[in-house]
Amino acid sequence: MTRRVGRPIATDRAAVARTALALFEERGYDSVSMADIAEAAGVGRRSLFRHARSKADLVWDGAGPAADEMGSRLRCAPAGVPMLVAYREAFVGAMESAAVDLVATRSRLRLIVRHAELRAAAPQHLAETAEVLCGFVEDRRPELAGTVGLQVVAEALGAASFAALRWWATAPDERGERSLREAVEEALEALAVLCGPASAS
Amino acid sequence: MTRRVGRPIATDRAAVARTALALFEERGYDSVSMADIAEAAGVGRRSLFRHARSKADLVWDGAGPAADEMGSRLRCAPAGVPMLVAYREAFVGAMESAAVDLVATRSRLRLIVRHAELRAAAPQHLAETAEVLCGFVEDRRPELAGTVGLQVVAEALGAASFAALRWWATAPDERGERSLREAVEEALEALAVLCGPASAS
Repeated sequence: MTRRVGRPIATDRAAVARTALALFEERGYDSVSMADIAEAAGVGRRSLFRHARSKADLVWDGAGPAADEMGSRLRCAPAGVPMLVAYREAFVGAMESAAVDLVATRSRLRLIVRHAELRAAAPQHLAETAEVLCGFVEDRRPELAGTVGLQVVAEALGAASFAALRWWATAPDERGERSLREAVEEALEALAVLCGPASAS
Repeated sequence: MTRRVGRPIATDRAAVARTALALFEERGYDSVSMADIAEAAGVGRRSLFRHARSKADLVWDGAGPAADEMGSRLRCAPAGVPMLVAYREAFVGAMESAAVDLVATRSRLRLIVRHAELRAAAPQHLAETAEVLCGFVEDRRPELAGTVGLQVVAEALGAASFAALRWWATAPDERGERSLREAVEEALEALAVLCGPASAS
């Protein structure tokens, strides 16, 4: 197969995704076609489709590297650190690492919040994150292995993180990285509230 | 508009959904068309499409009545009862009430677990449930109003319930209603584990 147009997309996938995000912000997600993206990115349409089957794939691109980075950090967390603290540090650390482009992430989340089509793609694109979370919970709470509780705890952590990211991305003013940490801290504290004194009273 | 075929669908929506579920189980979800369902249910295709735009709508039908029933029960829960207990009783009570057909629910969940297309429709069909949960959490924890924590707690409760339902529906042996309660209890206990002694140690 010969490629007539453009540069090798495999080495530049992140750049293509950034071009797509810029187009979505400029013209609106619904108005931009895959052909528009290929043209703006200077890649052939067939090359583009080989790597991203849909606009949703381009928006969600980045979830994989973030999950990988978080997974490495979770595996390195010292056993003595409480579970929620270990999780908070790994999650915030991954988001603030070189593996994640926070500006693009913010733009991605704002699109996801606004478009039902993109939200519907969440389970598919967060499958790796879900797996990383299940592994972490099983390491920390081996007594939950094989029970519905493993799924519940992993999903609660995932939901808390995703809510924190959405809150951070859609805050009306421009917030810096420190506020992402604050959102995550607030989200995880709220989970603790679930079984805090008031709920047990 | 005259309807040439069948009985009035509005009064028999649940029956049409049951017919669809039976066809999905018999022939496989992917092999059944909306036309097949209309024919088997004895309703016109246009009538069917007026009430359900897709097979996913027919599988998810039932989430609305369950959310309504749970909402009523949550609003009636005495204030002195701890939040997780009030939630557990309202959720299990709703699932075991006349508002919910547990046999159909089991069949629905088994389809949802197996088909990505159906899982992708979850946010849309669980929107009412999410709203009911947010209202409940805001009543119980007014200090969380306007914070990311409200979303986190509501989503954690929703994720726990949905995981419990999936666990119950996909258990290899036939389980009765008592096991649905057990799954919900186990799921909510696992949430409490998140901030239990081991995580704080």
